[in-house]
Amino acid sequence: MACDYIELANKGVQGLQPYQPGKPVEELERELGITDIVKLASNENPLGPSPQALAAIQAVLPELTRYPDGNGFRLKAALADKLGVEAAQITLGNGSNDVLEMIARSYLTAHSASVYSQHAFAVYPIVTQAIGAQHIAVPAKDWGHDLDAMAEAITDKTRVVFVANPNNPTGTWLTESEVRTFLNKVPPRVIVVLDEAYTEYVDKTDFPDGIALLKDYPNLVVTRTFSKAYGLAGLRIGYSVSNPEVADILNRIRQPFNANLAAQEAAIAALSDEDYLKRSVAVNAEGMAYLEGEFNRLGLGFIPSVGNFISVDVGQPAGPVDGALLREGVIVRSVAPYQMPDHLRVSIGTMDENRRFIEALEKVLGALSGEQS
Amino acid sequence: MACDYIELANKGVQGLQPYQPGKPVEELERELGITDIVKLASNENPLGPSPQALAAIQAVLPELTRYPDGNGFRLKAALADKLGVEAAQITLGNGSNDVLEMIARSYLTAHSASVYSQHAFAVYPIVTQAIGAQHIAVPAKDWGHDLDAMAEAITDKTRVVFVANPNNPTGTWLTESEVRTFLNKVPPRVIVVLDEAYTEYVDKTDFPDGIALLKDYPNLVVTRTFSKAYGLAGLRIGYSVSNPEVADILNRIRQPFNANLAAQEAAIAALSDEDYLKRSVAVNAEGMAYLEGEFNRLGLGFIPSVGNFISVDVGQPAGPVDGALLREGVIVRSVAPYQMPDHLRVSIGTMDENRRFIEALEKVLGALSGEQS
Repeated sequence: MACDYIELANKGVQGLQPYQPGKPVEELERELGITDIVKLASNENPLGPSPQALAAIQAVLPELTRYPDGNGFRLKAALADKLGVEAAQITLGNGSNDVLEMIARSYLTAHSASVYSQHAFAVYPIVTQAIGAQHIAVPAKDWGHDLDAMAEAITDKTRVVFVANPNNPTGTWLTESEVRTFLNKVPPRVIVVLDEAYTEYVDKTDFPDGIALLKDYPNLVVTRTFSKAYGLAGLRIGYSVSNPEVADILNRIRQPFNANLAAQEAAIAALSDEDYLKRSVAVNAEGMAYLEGEFNRLGLGFIPSVGNFISVDVGQPAGPVDGALLREGVIVRSVAPYQMPDHLRVSIGTMDENRRFIEALEKVLGALSGEQS
Repeated sequence: MACDYIELANKGVQGLQPYQPGKPVEELERELGITDIVKLASNENPLGPSPQALAAIQAVLPELTRYPDGNGFRLKAALADKLGVEAAQITLGNGSNDVLEMIARSYLTAHSASVYSQHAFAVYPIVTQAIGAQHIAVPAKDWGHDLDAMAEAITDKTRVVFVANPNNPTGTWLTESEVRTFLNKVPPRVIVVLDEAYTEYVDKTDFPDGIALLKDYPNLVVTRTFSKAYGLAGLRIGYSVSNPEVADILNRIRQPFNANLAAQEAAIAALSDEDYLKRSVAVNAEGMAYLEGEFNRLGLGFIPSVGNFISVDVGQPAGPVDGALLREGVIVRSVAPYQMPDHLRVSIGTMDENRRFIEALEKVLGALSGEQS
């Protein structure tokens, strides 16, 4: 070709290492020719969608030739009502990934920097790198955020700080007083993103509600999603809540129809399906207790998690274990890209899925141990 | 607040004038308290979705708790097969708007520029402005692209040129030889985006197939959408076809799950529903002929269009006509932001909808003329 179209692209984009998603079931079927696959790789809700969400999608099917409401009037009204905020504080996203990207594009440039924690969600450095901004990973403490060190890492160049509570893929969490102490140290010109994708699963009395913190910290942006406890990962819908000025900026850069029609309708319905949310949290708690017990029985360390996933230390490089699990038809997530080479992250499934995983893990670890002896 | 969070945002984003979408039906219902509304404002397919697409969505409903295939394997395979290209040339978007934005973010910076035509799609300057790049609108010729002038407008700073064929909102189009002559003049380091959102409606023998041009022009990126003739605007799915290097770059900056699961499945089904596509094109042709005839009867000028919409010159500032049509329950599109203050763009609907529009237009113009006399 006359030109190198990689070299012609912006340096930040050239340097992107795209996010590695959990392997889709059908991809594993294609690759290995196996069926009856259990996927515990993407922190999805194992229950299937809320019946109310499904009914809402059914009702809107004849309208799918129509563009969605670009202003998301009804979904924002439902969220505002549920959360006790103004609709003008809300920005809808094509998943919360979309909102994270809008924040980076609005407040970072090639000359500024973001700060986040080691072992934190891969999308924080990706959305920063895409702009050519500097991304500074602060070493973790006990697998979680070292907020003191993160506060110290903030410089004049820092425009955005990403804090995940709880954090994925470690499942660690921060108390309200820890978060407040941190926010009190951050200059108000620095946007702090509090990513609460997994907040619905957390059952800790001193766990903060980011929305309640907004009135004290105008530089705070809380992001949430319908992909996890609300069970709508396939439809892509998330949002942020912030002060109205930040929301105004985010809505300026937002693609006009970023939140699709089916997702908006399903999200409105899911918000009011409290029974589904309760069952999702209960199934998660039962599965988490089971997996912790089994890891203890197998003598495997793990990072205590308040999310819908848990990272287990397989006591050896996790790559071969992951590969062997795949051949058993069990998809979990390698977290080697998160500097956790001996861990695998497993999403909490139904009890049948959790048992399938433990059986496969026990078999695989036994076989690998036999090879080594 | 301690800071001005508008002022803290990047200048390009601050300067954004968000896209003004067509008014949603339910918004008009809320505002005016009227029902039985006809919406001919967003160039949507008036037939309702393809039955095959609906069946595909139904089939995937139980899977909506799962993330979509981030690589879009099956949809890209279906497109590659249909278009005679490699899957590695394809980038999927959350609508083609998403792909247009990815191109801008990959190849434009605050120090470069894009070129497009006056009266062309509003998203071209928006995605450019979001980056803080310069956007140069080249005066139109006979409402269409003046490709000679656009070629002359390309400077050392130009990185991207947007060409819409056919163009929205004017419905004008370019022949294959016009497009080739233009492409021959553009330096290969400049990305030329050929936006073919409405290509399925065009019935002209010398109308180019952008895909066929790709082998001669490695700097060409063809964008298409399922929002128009394929009838899936609500689900948000579009794509680009380019040389594999450009596609590699776009897929690096693409959000990992930008194309939702329902949209991918519906698009695969819609691609093979040739009957639906044929009916969509036929209904459009019938409606277009009817509207042209009625405009002639009413003595109104219009811009001959090959799309699924037509811009009519109402012979006076169109704002009051638009407002009066809204009160009649007919939503069309003001194109004043496109420097077309006397035109209204009307999407081709079903024949019932087209007749409703003409009746309302005749009534409204008669009333306004009565006021003036």
